[in-house]
Amino acid sequence: MEGKIVLTGIKPTGDLHIGNYVGAIRPAIELTQEPGVKPVYFIADYHALTTMRDPKELHDRTYEIAAAWIAFGLDPDKVLFYRQSDIPEIFELTWILSCLASKGLLNRAHAYKAKVEENLKAGRDPDTGVNMGFFNYPVLMAADILLFKTDLVPVGKDQIQHVEIARDIAENFNRTYGETFRLPEALIDEATAVIPGLDGRKMSKSYGNVIPLFSDEKTLKKLIFRIKTDSKPPEEPKDPEESTLFHIYRGFAEKEEVEALARRYWEGIGYGEVKNMLFELLNRKLVEPRRIYRELIDDKAKLDKWLAEGAEKAREIARPFMNDIRKKIGRLL
Amino acid sequence: MEGKIVLTGIKPTGDLHIGNYVGAIRPAIELTQEPGVKPVYFIADYHALTTMRDPKELHDRTYEIAAAWIAFGLDPDKVLFYRQSDIPEIFELTWILSCLASKGLLNRAHAYKAKVEENLKAGRDPDTGVNMGFFNYPVLMAADILLFKTDLVPVGKDQIQHVEIARDIAENFNRTYGETFRLPEALIDEATAVIPGLDGRKMSKSYGNVIPLFSDEKTLKKLIFRIKTDSKPPEEPKDPEESTLFHIYRGFAEKEEVEALARRYWEGIGYGEVKNMLFELLNRKLVEPRRIYRELIDDKAKLDKWLAEGAEKAREIARPFMNDIRKKIGRLL
Repeated sequence: MEGKIVLTGIKPTGDLHIGNYVGAIRPAIELTQEPGVKPVYFIADYHALTTMRDPKELHDRTYEIAAAWIAFGLDPDKVLFYRQSDIPEIFELTWILSCLASKGLLNRAHAYKAKVEENLKAGRDPDTGVNMGFFNYPVLMAADILLFKTDLVPVGKDQIQHVEIARDIAENFNRTYGETFRLPEALIDEATAVIPGLDGRKMSKSYGNVIPLFSDEKTLKKLIFRIKTDSKPPEEPKDPEESTLFHIYRGFAEKEEVEALARRYWEGIGYGEVKNMLFELLNRKLVEPRRIYRELIDDKAKLDKWLAEGAEKAREIARPFMNDIRKKIGRLL
Repeated sequence: MEGKIVLTGIKPTGDLHIGNYVGAIRPAIELTQEPGVKPVYFIADYHALTTMRDPKELHDRTYEIAAAWIAFGLDPDKVLFYRQSDIPEIFELTWILSCLASKGLLNRAHAYKAKVEENLKAGRDPDTGVNMGFFNYPVLMAADILLFKTDLVPVGKDQIQHVEIARDIAENFNRTYGETFRLPEALIDEATAVIPGLDGRKMSKSYGNVIPLFSDEKTLKKLIFRIKTDSKPPEEPKDPEESTLFHIYRGFAEKEEVEALARRYWEGIGYGEVKNMLFELLNRKLVEPRRIYRELIDDKAKLDKWLAEGAEKAREIARPFMNDIRKKIGRLL
């Protein structure tokens, strides 16, 4: 049985926290291990250019994100794993597809519309602060998706439109030049796991309540002991669902461990003890990825080798397909 | 003395006529022979994708335009001459620059604004029939210009804005990432030679009044004899400025020949005689380019070789500069 090509773009954002791991990295890596899935994962570094202006940031984040995913089990020998900017065919295709993308389609893109609304509310010109990369990036994304004959794109609900735009452009191309592109479908992630941060709200960089994914043991322990709890005494029975500590624990523990801890909550357990359990659990889960991550970041030769090999494998797919596309539009006979 | 890099993009439009030659091809080729000029000429085939949908048309027009320019003296050994789509760096740079081009800048582009106005007048949505290639092509043009460190871009007055947009984007990049791009200037072509068509109006495909550049002798003669004249008898003195025949003749003849013919007009000359003179002149000027053009179109191997060599030379310039750009944005260290 031929598998389904499942494509995921990874934006090189910095300061990964355990919420990113539980909500995005872990499910994406688990997906690569499912039967019938041919995973294609890429670092969307040139997509990041729409907002990033610091060269050191772009550089460092790219390596950090590659190291993080590999540290958590992404296997570059089994997953087609590359950096977007290593594939020149993507940018050539972006131009070609832009000629088949109606501007009206992009006017209706959610991210752009939200920005326009924000500007209008503030009494500014609707396009204030909008660059053409930001406006045009659904077309770049369409090229990312279509060039690798993607069947499925795992997305959150707010990202479904991007897959629809890619389909729309692909259909227009196929209608104009004959059957060329496979039409991708969104694989909607109904229940993204969310864990709370130190203060009980959703863990998020913007709330400043995160536990960094690769903090050392000492910092990890210190942060866990700063997690907010109520003032109930140890012996008082507690509802685990009301406890931030329990929610984080559940994000990492096995089913049996979670059930055992829930029972302890109802019987009465001290938060200090739970914090120690949570630290032990997290540290156990993170110690090996932390070691691999550090090793990869300290000596980038391995990452460079993987990225170079990934680029070569990706271009072996992209080059002949790009030639087909060039023939379709009349660039080649 | 180092020369100035002068860059010209050639759109692969079809059905070239003698008006295109006098107004565009000849002055551009003369420019390549001026001292201190380092000419860079390219066929903007992917630019044509914003409007062209017929693969055979894109293909044939590209070869025809290359053959035409070479037939009229463009020397691929002295001019850097390439096809846009052969240079992947252009499309990568287009993406990068789009992230530094404010959308407002593109909203104000003349061609886009004209299209919007046309739509509004017709009671349509302002973006009807606008594709993203059309909207974004000033950014592609900026990449065309900036990648080759262009000093001067010869343009008609209606094209000055494109050079201004390229400068604006370059300045923004330089401000953000440090001095990288040379700022291009427009070389404004004040007096483009215009010749009239068969009916006395400006020669233009849309008027259906053209003399094709590569028509055979018989067709050329037939068309010249169809040029509109008034009914003055041969012996009547005539003002040459009022004669379509004279205007076309002047577009091709030497100064002395033009003066001699003007004298004959004032003395009285029959239009039949002028038509014969015009045919002889045009045929003399066109016979050799016609032969070369036919030869190149009938056996495309030579064109393929020139285009391949041109692409290689262009990429020898584009590759290292693109690496500099990648370093500036943090893609490479």
